Amino acid sequence: MSEPVINIGLAGFGTVGRGVWKFLRSQEDLLACRTGARLKISKVTTRTRSKALDQGVPESMLVPSWKELVSDSQIEIIVELMGGVQEARELVMTALRSGKHVVTANKALLAAHGEELLGIAREQGKKLLFEASVAGGIPILKALQEGLVANHVKSIHGIINGTCNYILTTMRDQKRTYEDVLVDAKRLGYAEADEALDVDGYDTAHKAAVLAALAYGVWVPEAKLFTQGIRSIQQQDIAFARQLGYEVKLLAIIKNDLEETLEIRVNPTLIPLTHVLASVDGVFNAISLRGDVVGDALFYGRGAGEAPTTSSVLADLAEIAKGRGRQEAASFCKPLVKKVLQIEEIISRYYLRLTIEDKPGVLAQVATVLGVHGIGISSVIQPETHEENGVPLIIMLHDAQEQKFVEAVKEIEKLKVVQAPAVWIRVEDFSS
Amino acid sequence: MSEPVINIGLAGFGTVGRGVWKFLRSQEDLLACRTGARLKISKVTTRTRSKALDQGVPESMLVPSWKELVSDSQIEIIVELMGGVQEARELVMTALRSGKHVVTANKALLAAHGEELLGIAREQGKKLLFEASVAGGIPILKALQEGLVANHVKSIHGIINGTCNYILTTMRDQKRTYEDVLVDAKRLGYAEADEALDVDGYDTAHKAAVLAALAYGVWVPEAKLFTQGIRSIQQQDIAFARQLGYEVKLLAIIKNDLEETLEIRVNPTLIPLTHVLASVDGVFNAISLRGDVVGDALFYGRGAGEAPTTSSVLADLAEIAKGRGRQEAASFCKPLVKKVLQIEEIISRYYLRLTIEDKPGVLAQVATVLGVHGIGISSVIQPETHEENGVPLIIMLHDAQEQKFVEAVKEIEKLKVVQAPAVWIRVEDFSS
Repeated sequence: MSEPVINIGLAGFGTVGRGVWKFLRSQEDLLACRTGARLKISKVTTRTRSKALDQGVPESMLVPSWKELVSDSQIEIIVELMGGVQEARELVMTALRSGKHVVTANKALLAAHGEELLGIAREQGKKLLFEASVAGGIPILKALQEGLVANHVKSIHGIINGTCNYILTTMRDQKRTYEDVLVDAKRLGYAEADEALDVDGYDTAHKAAVLAALAYGVWVPEAKLFTQGIRSIQQQDIAFARQLGYEVKLLAIIKNDLEETLEIRVNPTLIPLTHVLASVDGVFNAISLRGDVVGDALFYGRGAGEAPTTSSVLADLAEIAKGRGRQEAASFCKPLVKKVLQIEEIISRYYLRLTIEDKPGVLAQVATVLGVHGIGISSVIQPETHEENGVPLIIMLHDAQEQKFVEAVKEIEKLKVVQAPAVWIRVEDFSS
Repeated sequence: MSEPVINIGLAGFGTVGRGVWKFLRSQEDLLACRTGARLKISKVTTRTRSKALDQGVPESMLVPSWKELVSDSQIEIIVELMGGVQEARELVMTALRSGKHVVTANKALLAAHGEELLGIAREQGKKLLFEASVAGGIPILKALQEGLVANHVKSIHGIINGTCNYILTTMRDQKRTYEDVLVDAKRLGYAEADEALDVDGYDTAHKAAVLAALAYGVWVPEAKLFTQGIRSIQQQDIAFARQLGYEVKLLAIIKNDLEETLEIRVNPTLIPLTHVLASVDGVFNAISLRGDVVGDALFYGRGAGEAPTTSSVLADLAEIAKGRGRQEAASFCKPLVKKVLQIEEIISRYYLRLTIEDKPGVLAQVATVLGVHGIGISSVIQPETHEENGVPLIIMLHDAQEQKFVEAVKEIEKLKVVQAPAVWIRVEDFSS
């Protein structure tokens, strides 16, 4: 606990506010180790005090107005998660002018007043960071500004609204209408009670404006940003598109191939099934980007929700903290692991191909050996062939420890009915 | 040209060295604008002087040994692209101890001596950056260290060797043997004359060691890193795997779910066709990562080659330069665009669905209108239906300016044979 403490004022306690409260505590040691500073929330303001109290926010921390955050000289960073535009603007302006850094996830605010607010931040020499405003947990803004800094961005294509992508994916998979799926999406919490901001494309447009600003230094006003949502997409068009080899996605499209003109728009779009973006389903987000040096790159992940969005808010906080604390590589603070597993110790699923005598009972013999070693079979294929030297038997196995699996294979290879060395490959099903 | 100049010594003029020479010049203004400093190569050392001279490196810049780079007090950054381990280690150590920052793409060096070299960098208060060492142009190391800094990484799955992925993809698509495809890969320059480093998995293992070091602060020695390549993968196993719903990929797998034990290995792996990694084909790289806060995220792009790898070298140089120059958001130096396109001005492909009278000659009438407006048809579907009020006609169009397309649609809607308002959706084929 020797690291200096950085006090944070949290404005807003909705989904993301709750996430910041929770994860700043669960990740406090990790972040202290990586940044050299302790990030601590010292005051919270919210319209829904009961929710904050439920999460364990002490009553003494709750203040009735954001004005008490910005007037508190102990607070160095304001995290703005109130949403809305006018009051959020006033808060961010006042906070910056009071010498505080600001972290926000508010894309509507940035789309409307980003230029002005960043100007104030620059004047004041304070940071205004907003990684969480676009594509939740995906660090796309940092990639644009730093990892790909040597690139002139030729195009950006983004699936950056999970609600729309969930609706379109479900319409396709379940062959249902837009209206029908929307009801489900609301029930599951994927769509707001008032769905307009999402399905009419405005949320996507706000994020597109932020992306374009970072790529080109131009803030495109909402009125100039062509925006078309997904209300009019019909089931049959999704089906016809697939027959043609395309998927229907709501895309933010930003292009700057034509020298000094910028193309920026949000609309439902057919994209080839062969493009990686076409496989971005459900509530996932992805941003495909073409740079003049790097070529094509794609960033994919969860674009909304408490935890992913919080991941980006915390990354912004860490960036500010590192300016105060240790400026070192994140990982070299304290090794987190003590033992590297030997290959025999790993647990994996396995694909096993045997060459066997084509007669009844062989599978039973093989299964018995596997069973003795406690290894379960998940599926079996025995294709018809006319090989002279035995036929293939393909077995997909459940999780097993490699040592036990290898022992089982050795025993299986000794069976008389097995005519060649076994072929096996490890399987990764991403379940853990 | 008022920005301060930062002099760079370039050691090595192979593929990436040539890229750094070329792109540092083509991107010089962009980087000056974004970092506040002019990054200039002042001396080059290479065993192949003729290649450097061919690319326009002045003879006066060429020096016979890297020792002349590190002894030059004007040089602030050494870019190490010589490859190999022992001499590269000596160069990097000497450079850091001479008070210079170092940027390298040398994963073999890092896997063997990363811990030692980063220790020296820390002692000297200099930067040792190596974004280009893993997954070429994909800014995965920055994402691990900064964008996802609030996460404990639970697992990393990486397709990080383009040669192996090209071979496996081609074996699958063309139903050819490993040996056969390898010959092609060498001819096309995707595999080295000595292919062992790639196909036996060592290159992937070096990169896995770097990823694990950044995620967990532990440098796993090569001897402890289980490494299995792709030489033994047979065509039939790729085919059987697909029947089972899996793709065969060479993966680097790093897991830390079991508290203080680390699982790290490189091996051919079956992964579900439904996972995004399964669609990473050819020479592309991708890294899928699971964090305890962000959930799943994936980073995809070109993992090797002159330009993508250079993109990451330049990003590292920019990071060092920003410490000297302006510490500002990259994009706010100078707006790059002057005009935002109106939606009528964009050029796009279109999907058009009409509801038409089911009789001969209709397509001809529609095609005539499109032709008058200079819009070409790329494909047509007319599914059999038994609708009472007309039948669907789906037309996929070539590039057209939106204004002309909309005019054409209006005219088409006036045709007597067209029985309902047209439905249309923009198409994005990522060709430009």
